[in-house]
Amino acid sequence: MAHIQLNNELPGIIGLLTFRPETAGPLNDLAETLLVRENSLTRGEREMIASSVSYWNDCHFCHSSHGAAAANLLNEPVNFLTEIKEGFPNTEVSPKMQALLRIAKQVQKGGKHVTEDDIQNARNAGATGKEIHDTVLIAAAFCMYNRYVDGLATWAPKEDEAFMPMGKMLAERGYANAGV
Amino acid sequence: MAHIQLNNELPGIIGLLTFRPETAGPLNDLAETLLVRENSLTRGEREMIASSVSYWNDCHFCHSSHGAAAANLLNEPVNFLTEIKEGFPNTEVSPKMQALLRIAKQVQKGGKHVTEDDIQNARNAGATGKEIHDTVLIAAAFCMYNRYVDGLATWAPKEDEAFMPMGKMLAERGYANAGV
Repeated sequence: MAHIQLNNELPGIIGLLTFRPETAGPLNDLAETLLVRENSLTRGEREMIASSVSYWNDCHFCHSSHGAAAANLLNEPVNFLTEIKEGFPNTEVSPKMQALLRIAKQVQKGGKHVTEDDIQNARNAGATGKEIHDTVLIAAAFCMYNRYVDGLATWAPKEDEAFMPMGKMLAERGYANAGV
Repeated sequence: MAHIQLNNELPGIIGLLTFRPETAGPLNDLAETLLVRENSLTRGEREMIASSVSYWNDCHFCHSSHGAAAANLLNEPVNFLTEIKEGFPNTEVSPKMQALLRIAKQVQKGGKHVTEDDIQNARNAGATGKEIHDTVLIAAAFCMYNRYVDGLATWAPKEDEAFMPMGKMLAERGYANAGV
């Protein structure tokens, strides 16, 4: 049960966005801008970053929903959620994405963990300044969404399979008028 | 020097908001909603939470700018920034605010650190569900802003005094069209 009375039965952040529409507006708009709108990183790549950071933050709802969105966008099956948890042992991940995931991992620990070497590695692999910027902000944003979802003890389905329809909906409709 | 070329000399998050106006929109709107718009927590109280979380995250720019905003709103001198760092040893802080600051501290560590006891203490001190919600979201949001500012290695003035005019500007104009 959530720490506060939400007056709805919706899972994860969706219950919170419904409880407080004034803050839902900018939170949805930020997710839409970072994860959906035109970008040189594909939507699947950005969801891989979002889901990975959520896993490192131990946020089951966000890991699973964004993992399911990534799986849907990349035409992967449900076990892609496990791939994300394990660091993509069976998935081809470009050197650029590997370097950006490394930066995201540092951001998850704390902003000052990102080193000049981390940035140089990403540049050497072809990442632009804007891609580095967006990776840092996606990782930082999920350090917010994850704490919001778990700090208020929202509920979430347990099984990976339960998230696949949500992933499909997020892939098709985005976040502008939905949960994160 | 920042990790990426920002093409401006502005400090902290202001340089980042200027570099990427598409993400600046929702980031400013979120800050305005959480810190400025109508709320049963005063603007000064909300800035105390924002500045405290930023200090715990070791983010000098955000701690100082939001500390200066709090000082301005509460008619406190510049050493209020030190008060925030030290947990308000010389400031009268209501039991409700003490309980909310405790929740914010738990959120800073991670969402799952918030316990039923933390919530019950806040309720016993008179906090509403919405106040608890907003405290969790302010703390979570500063876990984002702080990582954004430091993850891209933005610069900031060193001296507390340098932040006081910024604090005054934030207190007077808010965040809708400004830095955070």
